Amino acid sequence: MKAVSVYLSALLLLCLHGTVVNSAKYNTGAGVVPGKINVHLVPHSHDDVGWLKNVDQYYVGTNRSIQEACVENVLDSVVMSLQRDPNRKFVFVEMAFFHRWWVEQTEETQAQVKKLVDAGQLEFINGGWCMHDEAATHYIDMVDQTTLGHLFIKKTFNKLPRAGWQIDPFGHSAVQAYLLGAELGFESVHFARIDYQDRVKRKVDKSLEVVWRGSKTFGSSAQIFTNAFPVHYSPPVGFHFEVDEEYDHIQDDPLLFDYYVQGRVEDFIAAAVAQANVTRTNHIMWTMGDDFQYQYAESWFKQMDKLIHYVNKDGRVNALYSTPSLYTDAKNAANQSWPLKTDDYFPYADRENAYWTGYFTSRPAFKRYVRMLSGYYLAARQLEFLAGKKTTESYTSSLGDALGIAQHHDAVSGTARQHTTNDYAKRLAIGASKAESVISSSLAFLASKKPGVHRSTPASVFSQCHLLNISYCPPTEENNLQAKSLVLAVYNPIGWNRSDIIRIPVHDADLAVKDSFGNKVEAQYVEVDDVTTNLRELYVKAYLGFSLKQAPKYWLLFQVSVPPLGWTTYFISRAPGKGKSANGFVSSNSIIPRNKTIEIGPGNLKMSFSSESGQLERMYNSRTGVDVPIQQSYLWYASGDQDQASGAYIFRPNGSSPSTVSRSVPYKVVQGPLVHEVHQKFDSWIYQVTRLYRDKEHAEVEYTIGPIPTDDGVVGKEVITQMRTTMVTNKEFYTDSNGRDFLKRVRDHREDWHLEVNQPVAGNYYPLNLGIYIKDKKSEFSVLVDRATGGSSIKDGEVELMLHRRILVDDGRGVAEALDEQVCIEDQCQGLTVRGNYYMGIHKLGDGSRWRRSTGQEIYSPLLLAFANENLGNWKSLYLSKGTMMDPNYSLPPNVALITLEELDDGSVLLRLAHLYEHGEDVHYSTLAKVELKRMFNSKKIKELKEVSLSANQEKSNMKKKTWKVEGDKGQQPPPLRGGPVHSSHLLVELGPMEIRTFLLKF
Amino acid sequence: MKAVSVYLSALLLLCLHGTVVNSAKYNTGAGVVPGKINVHLVPHSHDDVGWLKNVDQYYVGTNRSIQEACVENVLDSVVMSLQRDPNRKFVFVEMAFFHRWWVEQTEETQAQVKKLVDAGQLEFINGGWCMHDEAATHYIDMVDQTTLGHLFIKKTFNKLPRAGWQIDPFGHSAVQAYLLGAELGFESVHFARIDYQDRVKRKVDKSLEVVWRGSKTFGSSAQIFTNAFPVHYSPPVGFHFEVDEEYDHIQDDPLLFDYYVQGRVEDFIAAAVAQANVTRTNHIMWTMGDDFQYQYAESWFKQMDKLIHYVNKDGRVNALYSTPSLYTDAKNAANQSWPLKTDDYFPYADRENAYWTGYFTSRPAFKRYVRMLSGYYLAARQLEFLAGKKTTESYTSSLGDALGIAQHHDAVSGTARQHTTNDYAKRLAIGASKAESVISSSLAFLASKKPGVHRSTPASVFSQCHLLNISYCPPTEENNLQAKSLVLAVYNPIGWNRSDIIRIPVHDADLAVKDSFGNKVEAQYVEVDDVTTNLRELYVKAYLGFSLKQAPKYWLLFQVSVPPLGWTTYFISRAPGKGKSANGFVSSNSIIPRNKTIEIGPGNLKMSFSSESGQLERMYNSRTGVDVPIQQSYLWYASGDQDQASGAYIFRPNGSSPSTVSRSVPYKVVQGPLVHEVHQKFDSWIYQVTRLYRDKEHAEVEYTIGPIPTDDGVVGKEVITQMRTTMVTNKEFYTDSNGRDFLKRVRDHREDWHLEVNQPVAGNYYPLNLGIYIKDKKSEFSVLVDRATGGSSIKDGEVELMLHRRILVDDGRGVAEALDEQVCIEDQCQGLTVRGNYYMGIHKLGDGSRWRRSTGQEIYSPLLLAFANENLGNWKSLYLSKGTMMDPNYSLPPNVALITLEELDDGSVLLRLAHLYEHGEDVHYSTLAKVELKRMFNSKKIKELKEVSLSANQEKSNMKKKTWKVEGDKGQQPPPLRGGPVHSSHLLVELGPMEIRTFLLKF
Repeated sequence: MKAVSVYLSALLLLCLHGTVVNSAKYNTGAGVVPGKINVHLVPHSHDDVGWLKNVDQYYVGTNRSIQEACVENVLDSVVMSLQRDPNRKFVFVEMAFFHRWWVEQTEETQAQVKKLVDAGQLEFINGGWCMHDEAATHYIDMVDQTTLGHLFIKKTFNKLPRAGWQIDPFGHSAVQAYLLGAELGFESVHFARIDYQDRVKRKVDKSLEVVWRGSKTFGSSAQIFTNAFPVHYSPPVGFHFEVDEEYDHIQDDPLLFDYYVQGRVEDFIAAAVAQANVTRTNHIMWTMGDDFQYQYAESWFKQMDKLIHYVNKDGRVNALYSTPSLYTDAKNAANQSWPLKTDDYFPYADRENAYWTGYFTSRPAFKRYVRMLSGYYLAARQLEFLAGKKTTESYTSSLGDALGIAQHHDAVSGTARQHTTNDYAKRLAIGASKAESVISSSLAFLASKKPGVHRSTPASVFSQCHLLNISYCPPTEENNLQAKSLVLAVYNPIGWNRSDIIRIPVHDADLAVKDSFGNKVEAQYVEVDDVTTNLRELYVKAYLGFSLKQAPKYWLLFQVSVPPLGWTTYFISRAPGKGKSANGFVSSNSIIPRNKTIEIGPGNLKMSFSSESGQLERMYNSRTGVDVPIQQSYLWYASGDQDQASGAYIFRPNGSSPSTVSRSVPYKVVQGPLVHEVHQKFDSWIYQVTRLYRDKEHAEVEYTIGPIPTDDGVVGKEVITQMRTTMVTNKEFYTDSNGRDFLKRVRDHREDWHLEVNQPVAGNYYPLNLGIYIKDKKSEFSVLVDRATGGSSIKDGEVELMLHRRILVDDGRGVAEALDEQVCIEDQCQGLTVRGNYYMGIHKLGDGSRWRRSTGQEIYSPLLLAFANENLGNWKSLYLSKGTMMDPNYSLPPNVALITLEELDDGSVLLRLAHLYEHGEDVHYSTLAKVELKRMFNSKKIKELKEVSLSANQEKSNMKKKTWKVEGDKGQQPPPLRGGPVHSSHLLVELGPMEIRTFLLKF
Repeated sequence: MKAVSVYLSALLLLCLHGTVVNSAKYNTGAGVVPGKINVHLVPHSHDDVGWLKNVDQYYVGTNRSIQEACVENVLDSVVMSLQRDPNRKFVFVEMAFFHRWWVEQTEETQAQVKKLVDAGQLEFINGGWCMHDEAATHYIDMVDQTTLGHLFIKKTFNKLPRAGWQIDPFGHSAVQAYLLGAELGFESVHFARIDYQDRVKRKVDKSLEVVWRGSKTFGSSAQIFTNAFPVHYSPPVGFHFEVDEEYDHIQDDPLLFDYYVQGRVEDFIAAAVAQANVTRTNHIMWTMGDDFQYQYAESWFKQMDKLIHYVNKDGRVNALYSTPSLYTDAKNAANQSWPLKTDDYFPYADRENAYWTGYFTSRPAFKRYVRMLSGYYLAARQLEFLAGKKTTESYTSSLGDALGIAQHHDAVSGTARQHTTNDYAKRLAIGASKAESVISSSLAFLASKKPGVHRSTPASVFSQCHLLNISYCPPTEENNLQAKSLVLAVYNPIGWNRSDIIRIPVHDADLAVKDSFGNKVEAQYVEVDDVTTNLRELYVKAYLGFSLKQAPKYWLLFQVSVPPLGWTTYFISRAPGKGKSANGFVSSNSIIPRNKTIEIGPGNLKMSFSSESGQLERMYNSRTGVDVPIQQSYLWYASGDQDQASGAYIFRPNGSSPSTVSRSVPYKVVQGPLVHEVHQKFDSWIYQVTRLYRDKEHAEVEYTIGPIPTDDGVVGKEVITQMRTTMVTNKEFYTDSNGRDFLKRVRDHREDWHLEVNQPVAGNYYPLNLGIYIKDKKSEFSVLVDRATGGSSIKDGEVELMLHRRILVDDGRGVAEALDEQVCIEDQCQGLTVRGNYYMGIHKLGDGSRWRRSTGQEIYSPLLLAFANENLGNWKSLYLSKGTMMDPNYSLPPNVALITLEELDDGSVLLRLAHLYEHGEDVHYSTLAKVELKRMFNSKKIKELKEVSLSANQEKSNMKKKTWKVEGDKGQQPPPLRGGPVHSSHLLVELGPMEIRTFLLKF
């Protein structure tokens, strides 16, 4: 007896036994079909080079309890699947992963992959080491990490990536569009994340796809076709085919039950038509992938094969395997007019009250570490080139790799888990240690009087001090300065002559500093403050694993002067028989105020503070007459935790007004010949030193913030420094784009749509990498930063920087960990303390950019200090005290920076020169600049020079550009000023405003 | 400032950049190394053809929310991975899956797979349609489903599976060992599940691996090397490498962090040594797989490649890719002596109180459906052959496929989810409907008087009635028997002449039955009881989706006589002018008892019942004088739900005594010339009819059980029928092995180890497919079953069958669904009612087997009834009324059954003959039997005859056997009696006891 009523019900529908259907043969070879909606299926896997897991864990697939993700599986299985059908395509993005995989493959596999690449089945897009962040990255880092990947692709496959693929970064920068887009040779850029309000309007206008002109200077000459996705970088709902997921299969084998084809075809067509309704032309793109998908690629390709086959058989729409490049070709061929987009896509909010502006500041210590090493890497490569790359076992490439990964949009952005961030830092530290060795040995080699000395021989002569900022520097703390001198070699990685005051920690105040000619140098001692001594105690113990005995008592300050791309040596010895009051020493005093106002400043720039409250009141320049009343305070926003919490990504203050840390500040003033300092203790956890140097016309502010208290029930504090001037600024302020162009920002306003303001603070934050300024009819007030930082001008005349954040909850965007950074010693933890600098300048209207540009460059590329302890006579017999690569009478023009000088593996040398000014930015400097390469490389002979694209993967002259029709474009704009060709005889490089020119040289 | 103490700590350990390691090149080519522990890695995926999901869902990968399993992925990805390294191997088992996959592949893929099979990289083991169950399966089904797979493998790849691979079935049968093992040509069988107590002892004795002689008759001539795994069929802990799992990777790329090789090597060696310590010889097998693993095969192979490479580099043990066949070769070559195993591995307990003996009965309706269709399939193939296979569009192979899948160890076992069970039933119903069409059209073709008539022409002449048991049979219920006659063709699929009483439901009692010669046949009417009418009402509505108007009032019974492999036609018409009291009709009476005892029985066998309690008291046979006092009652065990619950797998009663349903039973007696019936209502949900037929010496008991009540707080009821005799049985009883051999069971005892009894009931249950018997010095009491059933003898003299189970909880073995079967009409559900038969016989000691063997065969192969409604004259002019394939004067010997007669796709004919008696079982019949093929195939001429192995994939004469040394084996046993070669001239087939001979014939 049978009891189940369904047993026979399917009788008539099924029963097809005996018919053999060779259903694996799908027609997947469709190209574009005119007159139909063409659905470009772009198979991709979004593989973060670190986020919830670290980059190696993602690659190898370990730590699955955190996330099921294994990029090795992605690449292995994609290659297998591509081989099964020549119509299948796949795009791969992150070369940090691909390179790991590539070197592990057998030659056979490598040969197979080359075939796939040659056939266009596997296409590299973006092609950098990572998919870099666009808010917290410096353009030099972006260029470097992209070059790393592009040169690997060029060398290995002789291919040029054609498309930018920034699908995940949390907002998009102007520099990305024009510099890391058009100037790289990309024809298009594609991404998912734009403001939710913006997206709504763009869907209505069919303006998700635009022609983007990110540069005011270059305009249409550096434009790029830009595709913002209608939803996200995943496929339409229901077309997600990862191996471990539930989805509706196309079951097309009539021998099996549950035959299901037409329903899927209908779903497909419905989704295609919906997207076509918000898209211009009849080409739409489906991003067939997601985070770490294609772990078993066949699972995707099998369904896509069937979809293409049956949808095209149906015929209402046309589906095809495609890539962003092919999609862009189709878009371009359609001869459509596109909306124009200028400026950028910051800030990004994915919904109301959810502005992703917290990550502009998240993990400020790590952000600084990345920025510091960026400049360090630039200098190390210069020295590596100067000393000759092949003569050493140390190398800068390890740091290059680590920095390449650190630019990832979950790395320097501060949005990775803590253990992953530690991993990034470990990689950077390893790379830095290699680079340190390159620098030390190169300096010794360059200085050696014996020309035959192998560069690697004197590797241990010099050491460096990466923790100088907390007064930890073993070579300067040596106590035997009677027997030996402290030798200090100072290298200047900038193409200009440079004079700076440096500071080193010492135990005694009876030292004499002499320059390379034996002349005494004026010095100043400043007592090391308790805050610094305590920081040194804690963090050096965390760093070394044990405590140090004695802390240095003084900072020894003196002025150094170094030629461009050259070095100078200084010698510090105990002053013979002079005891504690050595020559040139001026004791610093705490001055008891007699007036209500204390004025400081050994040079032209003066600052006055209230002697009662201890607070800043005014800055003025005695030379220029600029006078700006200004208050400065520390405040914190209480993080929100209701509808939307603040977190690693999101800044969502619990109201619009921050709390002031203190209105009355204990202070101490130190004055000497070189520097005046004001030390202010805003609270037990906020300490500030403002420094005015004799020969600088800006204020250097060193802040020390932390541990941010968490015991008051507030779920998080986001700490700002706020500078309030009386300037009338009409809601306008200016922030940089990746340290390069400045963009005008208007508070509570967006150029592209009518902004509905729901977050008057967070929605006005922008990322800073160089700085921020405001101006009125007379003056400019500028602030430069030493790392990626969020900043804004929330009220007219104000500027604020968010310097540190500590939040006890997560913001629900995936990282699933509170941004509560701690430092631990043997399980004793406390909140992380952050120390850093920002720089304030006041200028007459129109004069600020010169300071911003040159000082910005100097902040990015500080002088390198290398120490040795040696008998003075011995040293001088072995080493030269001074030198430069360049003609001693030459330096680069003040509007040009050397941003890359690097010997490549093949012996050719990569040179990048960057004009530092935008069109119209400065009367004198926004002009054609000229660099004489012969004088620049004074000691070497350039045999060959080839101008190449920004990432050096193709000759500049071969670069082609697509033409795009732009709505409202009225004829030709005047072409921007650019340098002309470089003649091999003169070797004179001209640079127009904002121009970056890249060369491959052979010497 | 850096704040994380670990940043630099790994400095010295890492930093290997620049070294390119071609780590993908692993040495995986190791063979066996003498003198070392050889770890045979056997990559496999255990792919149930239905369990939590149905077979197609498992294949395609749908319904992932239930289980992430997709066999298509397994096969796709395994093939890709095998192609990447010629040393990699994989074994595949379930041809139901492989065949689905194969027909979907392109010719290119098929060619690649053939190469892999030829190279030994892909090896088929077991090779049946499924991995059949061993408890609830009939040996004919086991042979059929194995043949289905083996012939596919042979035809497609020209390969012979060498190893049995029954890794998951819940206990192992003697028939599996000798028949579905040795007689198939398997050299070994491998499995995981043996009793936990048994396993402990075998590990101590190193006797997990044995030589198993499953047949008393054949002994060493049908032995097989048997490998019971030390733990399970998964790898040792930590060596599970599925793509979505957490495991320790061998990370051997020094360019990446977390390098980890030696630790894995140590883990591997430790696990290998541990296993070697419980294993004879230095060969151990690791089953590198698990349920539905290798969804992305590379994930496994990548780790195994590395393990083999690094472990062998270490050198302490030797790891190699292997298969069960290669492993067995190595075991055999070691020239070791092995322990001897006889009998079987039932019952199975995986821990204390967890006897997997519930599934012997679970889903009794489904078990019956499978058994019924098994016999039906046998008959249908006979008719398909007789009519000629190519002449029709209908076919039996659909039923063959469905039955092949239904033998799966989670199908007929009753341990699949309900929706999966429904799917099995649907497939069976579809197949049955195809087979019904074959039978109908073949019968019509065979009977047709026009020899040129195409077989498919009269396809609709006959119809059949699958729900006869609940009195639903539309053709017999036709009301126009005045105009037309009911034509009933009766086909006998057995090789003997056969006389049976059949019963059909009719509306009126005025019918005349005539045989093919026009002679009237004696008939009897029995009123249809209310229980049957109600069942018909409910279940026919569930089946058809609507209610029927009128229910038949009577069963019309009459005796039919049918030649072997032939048919006879009967004609039923309204008796002209006779009204309600037709000739030959004897009214059935309810007899009011005058004595305390009611005796019934129209023939030699009598049964007496207490007229007061209505209960059975005695059976005796007036011919043989056998007299057995016997009580029969229904009882139920309350399912346990504490430390271990009863469920689909496990029988765990909540105490050892079952509850009696009733001690006093309302009853009704019906007596007529052909049958006496006793109807007993034990409760509202238990109804029983006991029938004694005039010419049969056994009692047929029809039970109707259900819906089992669940409203009393008992978590489950497991319902038994219990027969208590006074026989003195010394704990002994006999149960069959897959319907073939009988094994002696001793209560609370195991032959191989000292049983610690914790479940005095569940631990003594055994699977029945043919039946169970007990004996004392005079008599035998036997019970035969109509489906797989659990049974035991819990007390001396007793026999019990578990007939139905309804349990509201799950037993925690994976199915995760309560075994609470229901029948639903429009969302109105009630517990499933089960109707079935069992048969009781009493015999003199030594005489029982003759009844058991021949009646067992008749239960398995009932007469087939095919109905038509036709004018008698017309019919007779068109059709013959009688016929047989055989020489009319010939029938098969009573000790031989025809178990297969099937035309294969290539036109050859598969013939299997089975001797029905064991060595020594019956004085007369345990002898050499002879079959004259010429007379058997009277109308056809055998052109060619080839004796082949059991699964017909190789010539018998080519089969080779490995020699094994067995501990305690004292010289040669006498060889078993087997038939000699078949001479093509005589075509005389001899069969020794228990011999099954398989032939391929060409006509």
